[in-house]
Amino acid sequence: MNFSDVKAAAVRIGDLVHRTPVLTCSAIDDQVGMRVFFKCENFQKVGAFKMRGATNAVFSLTEEEAARGVATHSSGNHAQALALAAKLRGIPAFVVMPRGAPVVKRAAVAGYGAEIIDCEPTLAAREATLAQVVQRTGAVFIHPYDNERIIAGQGTAALELLQEISDLDVVMTPVGGGGLLAGTALVTATLAPGARVIAAEPQGADDAARSLAAGHIIPSVDPDTVADGLLTSLGEINFPIIKEHVSAIWTVSDDKILAAMRLTWERMKIIIEPSSAVCLAAVRDHRDELAGCRVGIILSGGNVDLDRLPWQGDLTGSLTDR
Amino acid sequence: MNFSDVKAAAVRIGDLVHRTPVLTCSAIDDQVGMRVFFKCENFQKVGAFKMRGATNAVFSLTEEEAARGVATHSSGNHAQALALAAKLRGIPAFVVMPRGAPVVKRAAVAGYGAEIIDCEPTLAAREATLAQVVQRTGAVFIHPYDNERIIAGQGTAALELLQEISDLDVVMTPVGGGGLLAGTALVTATLAPGARVIAAEPQGADDAARSLAAGHIIPSVDPDTVADGLLTSLGEINFPIIKEHVSAIWTVSDDKILAAMRLTWERMKIIIEPSSAVCLAAVRDHRDELAGCRVGIILSGGNVDLDRLPWQGDLTGSLTDR
Repeated sequence: MNFSDVKAAAVRIGDLVHRTPVLTCSAIDDQVGMRVFFKCENFQKVGAFKMRGATNAVFSLTEEEAARGVATHSSGNHAQALALAAKLRGIPAFVVMPRGAPVVKRAAVAGYGAEIIDCEPTLAAREATLAQVVQRTGAVFIHPYDNERIIAGQGTAALELLQEISDLDVVMTPVGGGGLLAGTALVTATLAPGARVIAAEPQGADDAARSLAAGHIIPSVDPDTVADGLLTSLGEINFPIIKEHVSAIWTVSDDKILAAMRLTWERMKIIIEPSSAVCLAAVRDHRDELAGCRVGIILSGGNVDLDRLPWQGDLTGSLTDR
Repeated sequence: MNFSDVKAAAVRIGDLVHRTPVLTCSAIDDQVGMRVFFKCENFQKVGAFKMRGATNAVFSLTEEEAARGVATHSSGNHAQALALAAKLRGIPAFVVMPRGAPVVKRAAVAGYGAEIIDCEPTLAAREATLAQVVQRTGAVFIHPYDNERIIAGQGTAALELLQEISDLDVVMTPVGGGGLLAGTALVTATLAPGARVIAAEPQGADDAARSLAAGHIIPSVDPDTVADGLLTSLGEINFPIIKEHVSAIWTVSDDKILAAMRLTWERMKIIIEPSSAVCLAAVRDHRDELAGCRVGIILSGGNVDLDRLPWQGDLTGSLTDR
């Protein structure tokens, strides 16, 4: 994979996804002592950057492949994105979901016209059920991140960011499976080779940081974090790209993630999900190292249950430092 | 007053306030059957359009006036805006606040360096205390809306909107005291004379709608609405401008205001306060009348207590229609 895959994705999906704005916040800049440029993928269709990769994957299929539809197992933003991308192309989508998945997420996927197939809430059951679905329908499995078309699609967010904002010293994304990070790394290596690519990860799901240190993929086991988009292990395709281009993966505590999330809501007046707040949390931890820098951050998504905000409850104490 | 006052304000405050983005949302457009352009004053400094008027008022003062400082009575966004504008000019600000005002609002005003003077929570006490402060300090009283410089400053939001978005059929603002509405009306009458200016107001504080119908100002008595920025009566300077240029004032229930607020949070991923949601609520009520139109809405602010969201509690039932 290389930059040309991302360029091709940008052409393919250009009319199908939003070109999201880049916002800045002088209050946050003053607090951290640098200039931060936030690429607002929380404003993307389905509320997350996942729409980019899913759209690229779906619109890369041949007519013959597309006719059979697409399938995935996910209860998160990828499922919604794949369902909507399939709807845009007018083809079937099959989404395997654990029985316990939140009603609101099931409703969103069903609302885009996808067929939901229930399974038991284990990885083994998910994979077995997906295999059955693929066998039955002939649908093309679109992995949420370990897929070249997905990586190329996610990279288009950084492409837009770097086209709009010049002279960035650092480009940051959160890291879960590594789709957004790998795509961002490919783009930055070509368009801003002097900039560092840095990822941020919750301490309770720090498999990517440990993998980068070890030089091989260390799977995520029993992750525990409020950033529920970042629980997965790194993909096989993603890891070599990350190893080649990513300078560092910084880990942050859930308390700091929630404080950064709340700071963003309060000062920027935008809604981001916990997984999107890890980069700002890491920036605040590393403000001495980054002092005076121009930092681009990709805000990955904004899907939050507004009836159950994560700072309701016993976290107030930890949020006073902001 | 006329359009040239707003143009002068735009020049005066151009480098001191944010040029806020105009956002659109295809999900909302599809739902209401028109194109809606949201001018995001929730992203403005201090989180509200009030920064525009306050900055224009403060920076219009002569050196001699400015040296004595500015004063107001307010516990809302105007107080914060005046405090910050005064700080930017390096002059004192005195803010009279009722003792019961929320701690977070007092802290924000004090954080900008203003001196807070407590008073009893009655209009009489507020005015008496303000008079004492003005007498003691010589500070210039800056009324929150019944002031030409304030009106001209607030009009700069519509000026930016109309410069950026062409061919609007309707321009909408919420109405409380009428500063934003009067400024918007002056701008629209000149730059888009074919467009209608329509205001939206809570049913529980519908004094502006009744005033427009009666042809004279009917004061707001015991207003009761979740839109706490819209409780005040129309200003004397504001009313004639509104009478001349505003086609209609539509009223909406609090339930519909909260539903529109939540829809904005969920689909646009931006934080707006209840007072900002009245226009979208009114648009949803009048979707047949506005079908196919291009509608500009000024989102007035985004200051919300994130620990106490207005839909927490018993309102869920009323929010299902969205």
